[in-house]
Amino acid sequence: MYPYNLCLPTNLVFGKGRVSELPDLVSGMGKNVLLAYGGGSIKKIGLYDRVKALLNGFNIVELSGIEPNPKIGSVREGVRLCRENKVDFILAVGGGSVIDCVKNVACGVFYEGDPWDLVLDRTKIGKSLPIVSILTLAATGSEYDGGAVITNPDTHEKLALLGGPSLFPKISILDPEYTYTVSARQTAAGSADIFNHTLESYLVKEGNILTDGICEGMLKTVIKYAPIAIKDPQNYEARAALMQVASFGCNDVPAIGRTPSVWVCHGIEHEVSAWYDITHGVGLAILTPPLMRWTLRDPVSLDRFYQYGTNVWGIAPSDDKMKVANEAIDRTAEFFKSIGLPARLSELGITDEHFGEMADHVLAHWWPLDKAMRPVDRDGVIEILKMSL
Amino acid sequence: MYPYNLCLPTNLVFGKGRVSELPDLVSGMGKNVLLAYGGGSIKKIGLYDRVKALLNGFNIVELSGIEPNPKIGSVREGVRLCRENKVDFILAVGGGSVIDCVKNVACGVFYEGDPWDLVLDRTKIGKSLPIVSILTLAATGSEYDGGAVITNPDTHEKLALLGGPSLFPKISILDPEYTYTVSARQTAAGSADIFNHTLESYLVKEGNILTDGICEGMLKTVIKYAPIAIKDPQNYEARAALMQVASFGCNDVPAIGRTPSVWVCHGIEHEVSAWYDITHGVGLAILTPPLMRWTLRDPVSLDRFYQYGTNVWGIAPSDDKMKVANEAIDRTAEFFKSIGLPARLSELGITDEHFGEMADHVLAHWWPLDKAMRPVDRDGVIEILKMSL
Repeated sequence: MYPYNLCLPTNLVFGKGRVSELPDLVSGMGKNVLLAYGGGSIKKIGLYDRVKALLNGFNIVELSGIEPNPKIGSVREGVRLCRENKVDFILAVGGGSVIDCVKNVACGVFYEGDPWDLVLDRTKIGKSLPIVSILTLAATGSEYDGGAVITNPDTHEKLALLGGPSLFPKISILDPEYTYTVSARQTAAGSADIFNHTLESYLVKEGNILTDGICEGMLKTVIKYAPIAIKDPQNYEARAALMQVASFGCNDVPAIGRTPSVWVCHGIEHEVSAWYDITHGVGLAILTPPLMRWTLRDPVSLDRFYQYGTNVWGIAPSDDKMKVANEAIDRTAEFFKSIGLPARLSELGITDEHFGEMADHVLAHWWPLDKAMRPVDRDGVIEILKMSL
Repeated sequence: MYPYNLCLPTNLVFGKGRVSELPDLVSGMGKNVLLAYGGGSIKKIGLYDRVKALLNGFNIVELSGIEPNPKIGSVREGVRLCRENKVDFILAVGGGSVIDCVKNVACGVFYEGDPWDLVLDRTKIGKSLPIVSILTLAATGSEYDGGAVITNPDTHEKLALLGGPSLFPKISILDPEYTYTVSARQTAAGSADIFNHTLESYLVKEGNILTDGICEGMLKTVIKYAPIAIKDPQNYEARAALMQVASFGCNDVPAIGRTPSVWVCHGIEHEVSAWYDITHGVGLAILTPPLMRWTLRDPVSLDRFYQYGTNVWGIAPSDDKMKVANEAIDRTAEFFKSIGLPARLSELGITDEHFGEMADHVLAHWWPLDKAMRPVDRDGVIEILKMSL
């Protein structure tokens, strides 16, 4: 059992219609609000008007147009707005990109220099504004963690802001009905994101019974409910189940006491989407099976992949563990395909042109990939990328 | 999926030797500390001296002799000490009884009347002193929840103080090595407590895949590691695994999105231990199999007991679900027996003398037992108690 710290200060408020509790939930947090959102889908679904009505009497300033893969430019704009309007708290309405963006805004407000510095050096993160989120996409888990991923287009960098407990939203309202209009493709990409977050914790050298149960529960939830949500977008149970497990993707609960994970797939995917601005979950879905096949060449990973096969995919136990492990990887690839996700980087127009730069950057800036279950070096990154082409 | 709120503000600090971080963890919390502990076992294991040395420079006032099944008298004494010494925070060193007691102290300090009022009426709970805990027994989960159980010997009442997030400890230090000296009997009783907490969430009408995985992981952890910890008390992995899962027993994580649980077994056991002052975990172990047999007479519970049998006990799937369900209950009873716990109330000198009063009181003061998977009325409580004699 590895040592761990766990601190999850967010108040999760989950269920149909619970947005109506917003005024009570934020009472006492101040009257000046930064309302942050993305491209306007919250207007189409009526959530924008609903929130404005609920916050009648508050002074609302808006940060709109936050991009998928949020850019540092939006962060800088948010910081400016908060300072100019003496904002007391930030209300993020949207998916992971919006919540990620406001995390950098929240700590950027109290930092004198450029907020990108805080991404490059977490020790510079100090005080931050409180964040409230209303989630509209089950995917990143940003509503229940202290991290964010920010892109700097000038430097082709997509990096993690790691704020810890102080950057967890104070409150996250999770109403599955607000995900009914998420498209099939976005639902699939979000599901791949949840799935891969869980795998990053699950596929490590040493697990434990509790978190194996948690991870397997999360994976089986996605396998069961993603296809239902795609086929029947207004199926409450499916949307609710995906939203429930999404929250646990990046908050360390699935990882407590396990061999520390190094999030190999995320590291590599962030390089790809930093260069090509593809949807994060799509990139993860493409990279996962090749990374699994590459990892399984190291015998140390066999037992974990075997357990993954029997416990998650329900493959019959067998003395031929390798066969089960390979079948589990095949099933993973088939699952992503079945929910409509592309299987190859080349389908997105990506070539091997920047693989070298991606490999150099992931090793310099992300987790120590040499601590993975099968250690990954520069050649490994390039090989996994080539296997994904 | 049922609506839920989840807020877990404690900073869990888990691992060997992590008590050494105490001074850093409490820096900024003030200098006046109430050091609370039980009968002195923390002196035998050197933890008392360790903590005093670590808190060199702090003004320490002590509340010692907190009883198992902590009494309202200790709470009153703690409140008095906090007020007289202008205590800034409370450091609870011990098991669930010590932590439970200081929760009532923490909110009692800011309440003008008798702290027992706060047990009887949770709406009277207001501000509270911050609590830090150092755990020495894996059992109640009080180190990671906002509840407490307090006994009033004058009225034969053992009731729950339900404080919510404000009564979660701010910090809980979990070093499994400090449980090495816990006796075989206490280890067994603590394990039964963890097991039963989990069952209270698990055996409800409607689960979900995530929390089924969590509950099954917790139950399987206890089944695997309790016997090891009893046989080999200094086995770190076993002590660590029990401590890890104990924390999740009462913090709602195993229950999110499920049919709300009504904690039938706990309600009845608290009545028994209010009258007879028996060890809580022992009472739970005795009551669990009879309660299960009684519940299984309602067909609605069959699928859950069947799943419990196959997923927790590894019983082979079968078309005869009732056979699997009954075997699962038999295995539960055998398990408690195998770790040295008594199987009948009569072994503890308990008779049916007060069963009527217990039934009346549990229905008046505990959860709405008519909402259980098999609804429990007065006759049901008495029948379950008689089956446990």
